[in-house]
Amino acid sequence: MGFIDHVRRCNNFVPGGYLPFTVDGAVVGSLRPAFAEALVDWPEVFRVSRSNVALAVDHPGLAERSHAVAGVLETLVRRGVLSHIHGERYPATPGRREEAKLLIDRAAAPYFGIRAFGQHMNGFVREGGSLRMWIGRRSADRVNFPGKLDNLVAGGLPYALSLEENLEKECMEEAGIPVSLACSAVPVGVVTYNALSSKGLKPDTLYCYDLELPADFTPSCNDGEVEEFYLWPVEKVLETVRDSDEFKLNCNLVIIDFLIRHGYIGPGERDYLELVSRLHPSPPF
Amino acid sequence: MGFIDHVRRCNNFVPGGYLPFTVDGAVVGSLRPAFAEALVDWPEVFRVSRSNVALAVDHPGLAERSHAVAGVLETLVRRGVLSHIHGERYPATPGRREEAKLLIDRAAAPYFGIRAFGQHMNGFVREGGSLRMWIGRRSADRVNFPGKLDNLVAGGLPYALSLEENLEKECMEEAGIPVSLACSAVPVGVVTYNALSSKGLKPDTLYCYDLELPADFTPSCNDGEVEEFYLWPVEKVLETVRDSDEFKLNCNLVIIDFLIRHGYIGPGERDYLELVSRLHPSPPF
Repeated sequence: MGFIDHVRRCNNFVPGGYLPFTVDGAVVGSLRPAFAEALVDWPEVFRVSRSNVALAVDHPGLAERSHAVAGVLETLVRRGVLSHIHGERYPATPGRREEAKLLIDRAAAPYFGIRAFGQHMNGFVREGGSLRMWIGRRSADRVNFPGKLDNLVAGGLPYALSLEENLEKECMEEAGIPVSLACSAVPVGVVTYNALSSKGLKPDTLYCYDLELPADFTPSCNDGEVEEFYLWPVEKVLETVRDSDEFKLNCNLVIIDFLIRHGYIGPGERDYLELVSRLHPSPPF
Repeated sequence: MGFIDHVRRCNNFVPGGYLPFTVDGAVVGSLRPAFAEALVDWPEVFRVSRSNVALAVDHPGLAERSHAVAGVLETLVRRGVLSHIHGERYPATPGRREEAKLLIDRAAAPYFGIRAFGQHMNGFVREGGSLRMWIGRRSADRVNFPGKLDNLVAGGLPYALSLEENLEKECMEEAGIPVSLACSAVPVGVVTYNALSSKGLKPDTLYCYDLELPADFTPSCNDGEVEEFYLWPVEKVLETVRDSDEFKLNCNLVIIDFLIRHGYIGPGERDYLELVSRLHPSPPF
């Protein structure tokens, strides 16, 4: 067990066999042949071949395309191919969020293998030369990763919100951080990984933030996602990440990036070069 | 002109046509067929084929192998294939410095396309909420990049020295930073790029450091490499990198990484995702 194992586990997607998903000539995702098969009943929406799946909708607008696909997804839920509709829409894009070619419900994102964007924030307190980090414990009733440790604030980034809006919203909902503090969050880079899930490819892009908090601030959860917060010395966070699986999988990567940027993981670490390089892969399409 | 142009220019190597250079079964570099041709006179040292160049020396030890190659390099200098011998040896390695399979003179590194390691340090001063960076102007008599702007401290990392030793040495030689200050330098990550030079492939790995300096410290150059130092507001540094070619090429990347980590280049920047991802490529072998 070590830092690099978390990074490798989040990058367990092996290319091969997946079909590119193209919209308007641009590859925006990558899907399993079995899921492609489930789309053949809608030739007016998807053109499914042995070598790729292309959006067939002729409507030029983002809204029309997205509406046509949303209709298919509803039927796929009724047929049991998809488990549910989440209600937030993610951009299917060859690169940036602003280049979205299509919007797809968040629950269907891994089936189409589209890039999913999120925001993760490390909150910390400095006292003299030492640093302590705020860590959340996810509630036991969560569907995903119940009881696991988490970053102070973390969440998916729906297309409808700007990065600033979503971060402020998540700061308040997940940790009771008022806008007056949240606006001091510093964007510090991006962590990416290409994971294989039971539903398909997850090429995730996490915008990372550091927020230095005053010593007298205590977070409080307003949406039931977190059951408890801890203020741990950075050394304890480092050891927990390095030696255990207590953190939600992708939070390990965000903390490793934090520890590298702040010098707590240095070039003496055996896997330093691989860690830095593999925290930043591009999507495999 | 923009941040991404510097990153793209440092990553102008296009694979194809180059021959892998293997030692002990491990690929440690990549060289031009024309340079491979120059090695055929030493079949006892290099096995040159159409598809690769392999070190033929049977001696198992690093010292013996490196000595055999050094002998060839001296003759190549006499023949005018190489311009000179530098005197510092770089490790040829499939990954980390500690996994060195062979040591090659620094001047020959790009001919063999081996990974070259260096250290770059940004020095800065905080005053209230603002940040100023120390920038060096390279002397007009330098062979490489005369008159260009530079990081406060930057240098190649010879195999014979540890990272700590070399950083302390460079801090004193290039900027008059005493060990008592240099030891506060924080390792903050790695910038890599795969450049094409007139001599061949340069897959460079730069260990990056931040050093916060006291307001009353003024750097002084002790080795003639820098003719002048400036203490610039970070905004002026950002604009100079973004809008000009005044900095030595790879220093732009180290500063872009600094500006991302400190939030001066944020997710609103058009090329943010590409910048982060392309500051960290692996070598192309």
